[in-house]
Amino acid sequence: MFTNGNPKNEESEESKLDTRYSDGAVRLRNPHIELMGQDILYHLAMGTESHNLVEMFGDVKFVCMGGTPQRMENFAHYVMKEIDFNLPIGATLIDLSQYRYSMYKVGPVLSISHGMGISSIGILLHEIIKLMFHAKVKNPIFFRIGTSGGVGVKGGTVVISDTACDELLNNYYETPIVGNLVKRPAILDQSLVQELKALADPEDPYDVVTGGTMCANDFYEGQGRLDGAFCNYSEKDKMDYLKKLQNHGVKNIEMEVVPFAAMTHHAGIRAAVVCVTFLDRLKGDQVDISKEVMNEWQVRPQKLVAKYIKKLLKAL
Amino acid sequence: MFTNGNPKNEESEESKLDTRYSDGAVRLRNPHIELMGQDILYHLAMGTESHNLVEMFGDVKFVCMGGTPQRMENFAHYVMKEIDFNLPIGATLIDLSQYRYSMYKVGPVLSISHGMGISSIGILLHEIIKLMFHAKVKNPIFFRIGTSGGVGVKGGTVVISDTACDELLNNYYETPIVGNLVKRPAILDQSLVQELKALADPEDPYDVVTGGTMCANDFYEGQGRLDGAFCNYSEKDKMDYLKKLQNHGVKNIEMEVVPFAAMTHHAGIRAAVVCVTFLDRLKGDQVDISKEVMNEWQVRPQKLVAKYIKKLLKAL
Repeated sequence: MFTNGNPKNEESEESKLDTRYSDGAVRLRNPHIELMGQDILYHLAMGTESHNLVEMFGDVKFVCMGGTPQRMENFAHYVMKEIDFNLPIGATLIDLSQYRYSMYKVGPVLSISHGMGISSIGILLHEIIKLMFHAKVKNPIFFRIGTSGGVGVKGGTVVISDTACDELLNNYYETPIVGNLVKRPAILDQSLVQELKALADPEDPYDVVTGGTMCANDFYEGQGRLDGAFCNYSEKDKMDYLKKLQNHGVKNIEMEVVPFAAMTHHAGIRAAVVCVTFLDRLKGDQVDISKEVMNEWQVRPQKLVAKYIKKLLKAL
Repeated sequence: MFTNGNPKNEESEESKLDTRYSDGAVRLRNPHIELMGQDILYHLAMGTESHNLVEMFGDVKFVCMGGTPQRMENFAHYVMKEIDFNLPIGATLIDLSQYRYSMYKVGPVLSISHGMGISSIGILLHEIIKLMFHAKVKNPIFFRIGTSGGVGVKGGTVVISDTACDELLNNYYETPIVGNLVKRPAILDQSLVQELKALADPEDPYDVVTGGTMCANDFYEGQGRLDGAFCNYSEKDKMDYLKKLQNHGVKNIEMEVVPFAAMTHHAGIRAAVVCVTFLDRLKGDQVDISKEVMNEWQVRPQKLVAKYIKKLLKAL
C-alpha cells in the first residue's frame, strides 16, 4: 500500500529552494503557509491573529533549547546577567507559552524547553521555524543545550556535536511523510562547532571536546542499557554495541540531535548541539550523581553558549 | 555493520517468559534488575534505595497517563471526587516527581504526564513498569487518556483504540536494540475495549466509538498536515493519505499508541487508550477550538476512565 522500501532523499530536488528572503529573513519551505488566513502555533499556544509576532519576537537572534522547563528558565536568568540585559524595576521573566513547552525571552535570546525525544523536539522545531518566519527574524542561530551519556569520556565533559547519527549509524533523519519514508541529512554547521570549541576556557576543570553524537529513540534498550523494564541481551552485547559506536567516533548519546540537525539544516538555519555528559556508558548505565553535581554540570554547556552569544552581540 | 534489513519479532522466542509472579505481582522481562544493588528511576527522580516504593506505591491498581502535567493534575482531582477518596483536612495533592514528568497519587490511582511522542512515553513506560515491579503491585491496569486528531469523526468524539498502527500501517513497534531492529506487536486488550465501550453514557451529547488509532512520529508532515514548517506535497496527497488511513479503519491520529500498546503487551499489562478528537482531519489541519471547548472536551475520556475505575473498585 505504501512505498516504504526506498527512502527518498529530498535534498537533491529541493536544495535549490531558497530558505531566506533577500534581507536574511527566514523563508519557509512550505508554499501553503502564505495562503492561510491565520496560522496557529498550537503547541506554543500562539497564533498570527491572536499575537503580534513581529512585535513580540522580531528582535530574536538566538533560539536556545533544552529538555526541561527548569533548565531553560535557569538559562534565561543566566544569559540575562551575561549579556547585561536589564528588566525594568519590578518586572521579572515569565513563561510565554505555559502549555506544552516553556518559553522565556531575554531580548535577542529565546530559551525554550523541548521535552524528550525526536517527536517532541520535532514539533517544537516546526513551530519555532514558523515563528521565525512570522516574526520576520533574520538569520537566527539555534542551539540545543543538553544532557547526555558519554561514550569513553568522563562524566562532566562537554561535547560539541560535529556529526549526528541514529542507533544504526545513519547520518540522516528518516521519517514517513504521507506514506513515503523521507531521508533528510542530519548536518551540523562545522564553522559553528569550531567557533564554540575556540571559546572553551582552558582554565575550566573539565574537558570540552568535539565529536559524534548518537541519537536514540529510547533511553533504555535503545541505548543498550541493561536496566530497562525489558532486556534480552547481555553485558557483552551492550559493550560490543557501545564500542562500535565509539569506533565510529561517537562521544555521547542523547535523544534529539538527529531531527535537530536535519530540520535546522533543511531550513538553512545555523545550529549547534552542546551537551554535558552525566556518566561514561562504558562504565555503567545508571545516572547516580547527586542533584547538586547534576545542577553544576548542567551549567557547563550554558556557559559556552552564553559566551558565544555575548561575543556575537558585541560584534554586531 | 548492523543488521537493519530483517527486523526480529521477539514474541515467538519470549512469549513463554512469565510477566507475573504467582501472586499476580509484576515480574520484569529483564534478568539484570534483580542483580542490581539499587535501581534509580532517573526520569521519575526516585530510586529503590532513596524511597520505600512498596510503602509508597504498593496499593496502586490503575496507572493513568496523558500528555500534559495540567491535564493529569486535573484528572487526579477529578478521580479523587469520583472514587470518594478523602485527604485529611489541611492536606492537598502534590506532584510526586517534579522532574521530567508530573505524578499524582490518589489512593489506588496514579495520574502521570507522559509528554509528547514515542520516546517520551517509552521512557516513562520503562520506569513505571519497573516501579510496579519494585512496589510489588499486582495486576495493574494502564490507561492513556489523550487528545488526538479525528479521521472522519467530528471534533469532540471519544475514540477507544481497538488497534494501533504506525504511519505505514504496521501494527508493531519497531525499534533498534543494540544494533538490531526489533519488532514488538502493538496489541490492545480487546475485552477492556468492550468494557469501556459498554460504560459510555448514551445520554452524553457526543459519540464514543471504538476504532483504529494511527501513531505518528511527527505532528505536521508525519500526519500529512499542510501547515508545518516544511511541506512538499499537495492537498490531494494529504487527502489520499488520510483516506487510505480511513479505509484501513483508522478513526484518530495521535503520537503514543504504538509504543504504549507494544510495551504494555510485552509486559503482560492490560491497557487501553481513550482519546478525544479535537478536529476532523478530513476537514482541516489547524486546531482552532477555544481553550474553554478544549478543556470541556478533554474531560470526556477522563469521565469514561474514572467510571471504569469506580466500577472496578466497587467490585473488589
